[in-house]
Amino acid sequence: MKTPQLLNYARDQWVPGEASSLSEIASAIDGAPVATTGSGGLDFDAMLRHAREVGGPALRRMTFHERARMIKGLGLAILAQKEGLYELNYLTGATRKDGWIDIEGGAGTMLSFSSKGRRELPDAHVLLDGQVEPLSKSGSFIGQHIYTPLQGAAVHINAFNFPVWGMLEKLAPTLLAGMPAIVKPASATAYLCEAAVRVMVESGLLPEGALQLIVGGVGDLFDHLGGQDVVSFTGSASTALKLRSHPVVQRESVKFVAEQDSLNASLLGPDAAPGTPEFDLFVKEVVNEMTVKAGQKCTAIRRAMAPAEYLDAVEAAIRDRLAATKVGDPRDKESRMGALVSLSQREDVRAQIGKLTASGARIVAGNPDATPGVSGGAFMEPILLRTDDPWGTSAVHDVEAFGPVSTVMPYKNMADAIALANRGMGSLALSFFTYSPEAAREFIQGAAAYHGRMLVLNRDNAAESTGHGSPLPVLVHGGPGRAGGSEEMGGVRGVKHYMQRTAIQSTPAMIAAISEQYVPGGPKHFLEAHPFRKRMSELHIGDTLKTPSRTVTIADIEHFAEFTGDKFYAHMDEEAAKASPIFEGRVAHGYLILSFAAGLFVDPDPGPVLANTGLENLRFLTPLYPGDSMRVELTVRSKSLKSEDTGVVRWAVEIFNQKDELVATYDLLTENVP
Amino acid sequence: MKTPQLLNYARDQWVPGEASSLSEIASAIDGAPVATTGSGGLDFDAMLRHAREVGGPALRRMTFHERARMIKGLGLAILAQKEGLYELNYLTGATRKDGWIDIEGGAGTMLSFSSKGRRELPDAHVLLDGQVEPLSKSGSFIGQHIYTPLQGAAVHINAFNFPVWGMLEKLAPTLLAGMPAIVKPASATAYLCEAAVRVMVESGLLPEGALQLIVGGVGDLFDHLGGQDVVSFTGSASTALKLRSHPVVQRESVKFVAEQDSLNASLLGPDAAPGTPEFDLFVKEVVNEMTVKAGQKCTAIRRAMAPAEYLDAVEAAIRDRLAATKVGDPRDKESRMGALVSLSQREDVRAQIGKLTASGARIVAGNPDATPGVSGGAFMEPILLRTDDPWGTSAVHDVEAFGPVSTVMPYKNMADAIALANRGMGSLALSFFTYSPEAAREFIQGAAAYHGRMLVLNRDNAAESTGHGSPLPVLVHGGPGRAGGSEEMGGVRGVKHYMQRTAIQSTPAMIAAISEQYVPGGPKHFLEAHPFRKRMSELHIGDTLKTPSRTVTIADIEHFAEFTGDKFYAHMDEEAAKASPIFEGRVAHGYLILSFAAGLFVDPDPGPVLANTGLENLRFLTPLYPGDSMRVELTVRSKSLKSEDTGVVRWAVEIFNQKDELVATYDLLTENVP
Repeated sequence: MKTPQLLNYARDQWVPGEASSLSEIASAIDGAPVATTGSGGLDFDAMLRHAREVGGPALRRMTFHERARMIKGLGLAILAQKEGLYELNYLTGATRKDGWIDIEGGAGTMLSFSSKGRRELPDAHVLLDGQVEPLSKSGSFIGQHIYTPLQGAAVHINAFNFPVWGMLEKLAPTLLAGMPAIVKPASATAYLCEAAVRVMVESGLLPEGALQLIVGGVGDLFDHLGGQDVVSFTGSASTALKLRSHPVVQRESVKFVAEQDSLNASLLGPDAAPGTPEFDLFVKEVVNEMTVKAGQKCTAIRRAMAPAEYLDAVEAAIRDRLAATKVGDPRDKESRMGALVSLSQREDVRAQIGKLTASGARIVAGNPDATPGVSGGAFMEPILLRTDDPWGTSAVHDVEAFGPVSTVMPYKNMADAIALANRGMGSLALSFFTYSPEAAREFIQGAAAYHGRMLVLNRDNAAESTGHGSPLPVLVHGGPGRAGGSEEMGGVRGVKHYMQRTAIQSTPAMIAAISEQYVPGGPKHFLEAHPFRKRMSELHIGDTLKTPSRTVTIADIEHFAEFTGDKFYAHMDEEAAKASPIFEGRVAHGYLILSFAAGLFVDPDPGPVLANTGLENLRFLTPLYPGDSMRVELTVRSKSLKSEDTGVVRWAVEIFNQKDELVATYDLLTENVP
Repeated sequence: MKTPQLLNYARDQWVPGEASSLSEIASAIDGAPVATTGSGGLDFDAMLRHAREVGGPALRRMTFHERARMIKGLGLAILAQKEGLYELNYLTGATRKDGWIDIEGGAGTMLSFSSKGRRELPDAHVLLDGQVEPLSKSGSFIGQHIYTPLQGAAVHINAFNFPVWGMLEKLAPTLLAGMPAIVKPASATAYLCEAAVRVMVESGLLPEGALQLIVGGVGDLFDHLGGQDVVSFTGSASTALKLRSHPVVQRESVKFVAEQDSLNASLLGPDAAPGTPEFDLFVKEVVNEMTVKAGQKCTAIRRAMAPAEYLDAVEAAIRDRLAATKVGDPRDKESRMGALVSLSQREDVRAQIGKLTASGARIVAGNPDATPGVSGGAFMEPILLRTDDPWGTSAVHDVEAFGPVSTVMPYKNMADAIALANRGMGSLALSFFTYSPEAAREFIQGAAAYHGRMLVLNRDNAAESTGHGSPLPVLVHGGPGRAGGSEEMGGVRGVKHYMQRTAIQSTPAMIAAISEQYVPGGPKHFLEAHPFRKRMSELHIGDTLKTPSRTVTIADIEHFAEFTGDKFYAHMDEEAAKASPIFEGRVAHGYLILSFAAGLFVDPDPGPVLANTGLENLRFLTPLYPGDSMRVELTVRSKSLKSEDTGVVRWAVEIFNQKDELVATYDLLTENVP
């Protein structure tokens, strides 16, 4: 049978690479050919322009919510085809459990971003950042930060270890932001990535130009990058350095996001002696991180640290557990660990182990030269190293063996533990096993600047923990220094990497027009009919209900105090209220004002407004004294759909007194019929 | 008289540069020597280590509020010494008005950051980012993003044009974040920067190691940078490129913030015909930006664009206004424009004008070779250029003459205007003169991705506008692509550039300990005495009042409806409530629940709690039906001082029903006696 050739997806066409550019990909299990792949002949400049000129405009015409629904559809399409992807996953050396992280974890990341997008982003084209900044006395000149999609292309350069998840964790925030992507997978597992791209393209959900795929080298693509493009890279520090230093990236200030393998640490806390639940959890986690995906994870634990007096016990416990780990064919359900991705990767790992031992670490479990598993495959035993002089064995903090390899080492005290953890010069993930809040606080505050994600694990959260090595879509993934100095994911945080923040200065009217939201001081359209009688689709930004006014009497205040039990001095004791630094006498309760406001603006009949679900940013600005009157202006600030049947309207509520001074302002949230 | 020598401030000592390293700085007014300066002999590696090992730890021991008070003190010290600084300012060629931006604008930036820091940052060592992320079903495993100060040194490389402001706009966020700084001013105006550093050092407010100064070259400093350091650069694109490409910056992922001169544009809107207020405002702004600081501003308008049919009128109006601009000795009150900073700078500007004319632009006002002002000084006339073929004259979008130079050019329609504005490939500031909200929306949404700050100016905000060229401390300053691809300032946004964001995963108890705040689900300490009876200093994070419970009856609901006027169907109409998709029958008003909650937790007597000032993040989670009961747990979430006399306590309020289900949660803000 002829070895199949992977195709590029360029300018909305499936295109084979030129024959001269092809290389062969071998199965990790037995070395048999899986596919040939290459990208020779592609016009990379034209691909970038297609993304910028066709994909970008199409995505930017959609709102955040429309893009969020598209991403959900893409994730569901992957899930619907997952069994075909699992078959390819085995060929990468990964077990089904490893593949679950990649395939279902990848689709789940799309669903998570879709959900965050619909809950935390507006159904609009512009994302507001922070509140209005007052810049002038009378309020005619204000500031508002906004985010808009970058108008270039996002170039995603992915690692071999998670061909599906690695693509989707970048694609979800990119598409949600409104940017088109060009994906370049690592060759070793490009066949699995190509299959996932095919599923998404065939779903018909993507606008033209939104997604392209390069299954070989990127040729002269970097020569054509510009200041609106983003390069998002996952892989080794050396490749990152090469790409990041490209003269065009430097000259054009191309945004460069790098997520590099790092020397992640896990620490046994000073309180976690042998026999404690934390000790056992630590041992289990170290072994798990060494063997899942055969240790080929950028977040895997490379440095396992323990108080010096517990180190022998730690070593022995890890060794015992490793001895029970069966290495073998990933298709075999008995196998706890599959193969490395390729024979050359295994050679590389062996060479790195050599550097570690040369630096002074010694192997305490496993034989790097053993060849377990299927003949011709890239299998190896998990290797545990140990050093008792972690400050004298610098390679353990600098040299990464990207496979089932970890080094145990002692620390003397908390300051030493912090210094050793930070000696990795920046990591993606760290875990600390303790049941002491004081230890957690001291350690985390001392080390957080060096690490992108930190877990404090113990008996109370072990059952629900997602583990040391799992980046989550709602949390940032990335780290400083050696880890690349960047961030990905983290919910909406990750979306912003594909957008530009701009400070806008103008009148409230202009800011409202630009931001597709009502802005205090902006134009209002006073309604004749009550807005609670309108469906969401009939309500417009700026629509305002102006209520009649109501006088608040001393009897109201006393009645309210009696009824609710709230007899705070400011409402009930004229002398004490006068004596306070805030009031000139008795004042109406804040909750009385809110309640009367609702009495003024609520329209009672059942209708498109179903319920008041929340309230935000309430500030009481001017006290309301007995005899003062109050009235309300209720204005549609923004609206967004939650589903086909319900949506949320955010109302700006302004309560005025008889002198038109603002008594209180807040945002009111209601659940509405669309 | 011997020319004075500027001193470096290294490792808390004033140190002269070695004689062989000295160069002379000449007055911009008449070329007379002002000072000699140099940094030969400094141990730059030791300076970095001093910042990291002495300055950083001292700053990190302080809370955000303590650092905010220090910054305020430094700003006030500058203001107290401002007249001495104004004398030096003249020697840079700047008028008093120009100097006001630099000196008082710089001090004001310190005060603004101090104020933002006290209002928007906690009185703690850790800044929380966003809400808790639920990561598990039962809530034992949650996520929280935190910011902690980077543990390296911030190296500030400043431009010659604003020696005081340029230093302070970087120093304020750096110190507020908790990072030490090493400041390197441009030589041409280093004497003014040195004087300002002297004021701050002599104030005695800075801990040791927090601030160092290099008044000459930075030697081998870059060779010693690491992944916890930050380089923050302001200046030309070419110098930025050189520094950014330094192999150590690349290899160590050193954070590099660049704010580069860019080809900023100002556009006359399509509606702003001659005779409109917007036309006149546009002409005035272009001339102002050409002449303030002799056009040596990174935000100055280099490209003035107008609808083709108005271009002649624009050119004529700008020319008329420029003709009335007196160029001369900046000490002379009649002078509207002073000198460039040096003769070599003038040569450079003339050379750049040559490139513009060679590319096809023609000079329509001013003579670049004229030498107005004082003999021997670096004066020149403002130069207006014009091109009628902006797409064919590429230099006008690429070549910056960093002096009193601007080019007028036509645009055809809105799409052309957006494309031309974006042709600058990234800018710091753009202004658009229009009275049409539709035009503003179309233009800003189409162009925002290319610009860091955009003003929409018109008759309604002109009187209060701070102008095209003024970065403000509360708004971001920076821009994509050609402008450097970075951001500074923007209030707390700018502080975060000097901190690391880390995702923390653990139990609520551990997250609470790490973040120095109460976290829902975290440990509570139930009080015997009522917390309203305690001063702020006696309240501890997690202190909780547990109230008795109260039953809510149908009579309560009807009474409340009658009293407030809120007869919403969900409270009054059993059938309609049942028919809704949310309720199973009539429910208590949300405001009734809030009011009863206050009745349960308020302690009436005047005391340390002065008033309820606000409420945030209210969510109604479970409806309360007639016959249900409710009780409250009121917990100290965080506290911060506003002044010596008042402070704010943020309380987490949790309302439970008789089944211990959460009915509502919110944050309550009270003003308290410290």
